[in-house]
Amino acid sequence: MGSKLFTAGLVLALGAGCAFSAIAQVKPEVLVDQRIAAMRLQGKYLFPLVPMAQGKAPYDAAMVARNAGYLDVLIRLAWDGFDPGTQGVKSRALPEIYAEPAKFKAAQETMFTEMNKFVAAARSSNEANAKAGIGDVLKACNGCHDTFRQKAQ
Amino acid sequence: MGSKLFTAGLVLALGAGCAFSAIAQVKPEVLVDQRIAAMRLQGKYLFPLVPMAQGKAPYDAAMVARNAGYLDVLIRLAWDGFDPGTQGVKSRALPEIYAEPAKFKAAQETMFTEMNKFVAAARSSNEANAKAGIGDVLKACNGCHDTFRQKAQ
Repeated sequence: MGSKLFTAGLVLALGAGCAFSAIAQVKPEVLVDQRIAAMRLQGKYLFPLVPMAQGKAPYDAAMVARNAGYLDVLIRLAWDGFDPGTQGVKSRALPEIYAEPAKFKAAQETMFTEMNKFVAAARSSNEANAKAGIGDVLKACNGCHDTFRQKAQ
Repeated sequence: MGSKLFTAGLVLALGAGCAFSAIAQVKPEVLVDQRIAAMRLQGKYLFPLVPMAQGKAPYDAAMVARNAGYLDVLIRLAWDGFDPGTQGVKSRALPEIYAEPAKFKAAQETMFTEMNKFVAAARSSNEANAKAGIGDVLKACNGCHDTFRQKAQ
C-alpha cells in the first residue's frame, strides 16, 4: 500500500476524532454522534418489521432474515459510547446510565438475549418465533429507554 | 405479544418516518440521516485500524476481526438511501450519483469485493493480508468519495 493512501487515512482518522486505540480518547461529541447513528440504524431495520409481526403488513421472510443479521451487529455498537465523559454533551441519555451501571448492563444483556433468539428464528425461517422475536426485541429497546433515555419532547 | 407493545412500536415507526414496506416512502431527510449514520459508524470501526495497518499502532487481531465483522454489515447500509428524492436535502452527495448510476454501482461492487477479502483475512488471523485489506477497503471508500462526495469545506 502506498504511503499517500495511508496519510490520507490518517488525516481522516484524526479529523473524525478517532484515537489510535483507546475509545476514551475519542471526543465526547463524536461518541454521542456515533451512539445516535447506531440508534438511528437500529430504527431503520427494526421498525419496518413491526407491522409484519402485527399482521398489518405482509410477512417478508427474506427481509426479516436480512434485517435480523444487520440488527445483530447494530445492537452492539452504541454501548461503548456511553462514556462518563459524554455527560456534558446534549443528548437524551439520562444520568441513571452512570448512577445505575449494573441495571444498565442488565438492560444490555436482555437485548443481546432477545436478539439471539430473534436471529435464530429469522434465520431458520420460523415465522411464528420470528414475529414473537420482533416484539421481544422492541420490548428490550423500550425497557432500556424507559429508564435510561429522556422522553421525546 | 400485547397490543399495547405493538401500538407503541407502531407510533415509533411512524414517528421515525419509516414506511411499512417500501423504502421510497421514507422521508428524504430520514434517508439522508440514515446514510450519514452508516458512514459515521464505518468511520468508527475502520479508522482505528489504519495505524495498525501502517505499523504505527500495535496490531490487535481481536479488534481487527471484530471490526471487520461490523464493517461487513455497515458497508451495506447506505446504498438504498441514495434515492433520487433526496437530492433536495443538504448533504455532501454529488449529482454524479444519479447521473452515472453504472459507475456508482461499480464503486459499490468494488467495496463489497475488497470487504470480502478483508473479512476473510481478518477472520483467519492472516495479519499481512488483513493489513493489506484495511488499505484496500480505505482505498475503496476514497475511490467512491473522490467522484461522488463533495470535498469537505
